Amino acid sequence: MKKPSVLAFDVFGTVVDWHGSIAAEVAALIPTIDAIAFASAWRSGYKPAMAKVRSGELGWTRIDDLHRMILDDVLLEFGVKTLSEQQKKELNLAWHRLRPWPDTVRGLTLLKQDYTITTLSNGNLGLLANMAKNAGLPWDLILSAEVFRHYKPDPETYLGVCQIFDRQPIEVMLVASHKDDLQAAHACGLQTAFIERPLEFGPRQPRKDLHKESWTTYHARDFLDLASQLKTQ
Amino acid sequence: MKKPSVLAFDVFGTVVDWHGSIAAEVAALIPTIDAIAFASAWRSGYKPAMAKVRSGELGWTRIDDLHRMILDDVLLEFGVKTLSEQQKKELNLAWHRLRPWPDTVRGLTLLKQDYTITTLSNGNLGLLANMAKNAGLPWDLILSAEVFRHYKPDPETYLGVCQIFDRQPIEVMLVASHKDDLQAAHACGLQTAFIERPLEFGPRQPRKDLHKESWTTYHARDFLDLASQLKTQ
Repeated sequence: MKKPSVLAFDVFGTVVDWHGSIAAEVAALIPTIDAIAFASAWRSGYKPAMAKVRSGELGWTRIDDLHRMILDDVLLEFGVKTLSEQQKKELNLAWHRLRPWPDTVRGLTLLKQDYTITTLSNGNLGLLANMAKNAGLPWDLILSAEVFRHYKPDPETYLGVCQIFDRQPIEVMLVASHKDDLQAAHACGLQTAFIERPLEFGPRQPRKDLHKESWTTYHARDFLDLASQLKTQ
Repeated sequence: MKKPSVLAFDVFGTVVDWHGSIAAEVAALIPTIDAIAFASAWRSGYKPAMAKVRSGELGWTRIDDLHRMILDDVLLEFGVKTLSEQQKKELNLAWHRLRPWPDTVRGLTLLKQDYTITTLSNGNLGLLANMAKNAGLPWDLILSAEVFRHYKPDPETYLGVCQIFDRQPIEVMLVASHKDDLQAAHACGLQTAFIERPLEFGPRQPRKDLHKESWTTYHARDFLDLASQLKTQ
């Protein structure tokens, strides 16, 4: 298969370690609670919240606002009553400060030499721009569900990347550590690269399914491995 | 006045030398015509075309497509009948390859140290991403009329930048070499920086109005001058 010219990256989990970053911020701010469980609980509200937007039950709502709605619930659930409004606002911005995986910046820099690299994330544009500035992520373009007013895995997002760059779906590749995301991109005709990220869900989660699927174009340990596979192919 | 935290840059003319870049590509491709006049004619179709979109006469149309419509007219006007469809397509992409002014990359790099720097351009996202990759423009975010589905000077564009970054208008500054653009941003409550760019319209145009207006927040010769004014303020 011909190599793609545009690589579109899922961000949460694929590019940055959301679980470790959130758990660290929570542990620093609220030392009395189980920060690992808190991080998992916060994230687990994410898909149901987006599903409400995707189904139309909720109008278009940015991830920053969904994160805040979920945070308020999780704080209640964990019995945290000591945070001021300013502290909650600040904690919600932890998602703008997620730390990259160790291979991320070097891997993206390598891939950028030969490909156009863009995000395709459900995170909002402001969040993704702040994260990139903070972590030094060298994107050629930041694309978000916010541009398409559709959340992944709606086809409008994957096909939207193709339209933005005037490319056929087969010329674009989604890079992600989530099989459902890749499967939806594959159904739209994009190439796909699965990145393992075994620790994405933190130290206590059941082992992630890292099985190589027959329908993925690439299966890589990390971004350096992907860059080397794309070079030597 | 407090300094802004986000700088939003107009692109054509302010960041890149559209006239010189287009004239050079035209001269190389069609040596028999007056490339300077051709570049001016191509650009002069731009505002009327956008006005049709802004008024609703034309549905949402990307600049790439507006550029192509205008190109076809200008080729007729200049009596050019020798270009193949592929050559016309390629020439239309000259707008993706516009060259930065000599101070641009260094100025943006300096400003990026203290501010979030984003585009706010009527150019489409793919055009702006290709231009940034080609010219090494270090944007924190690329924002376009395409995101807001409104062309400047519609207020939705300036206020859209504020919403994306969760900022009050006064915390955002438009940087542009066009007074009408700055005036519309000013009317929305943004800070403004005028950049002179005296040669924007090429060597034959009447002298550009470089007069310092009372309502602009900054008036700078170029990006290095702006960076130094913002440092020493």
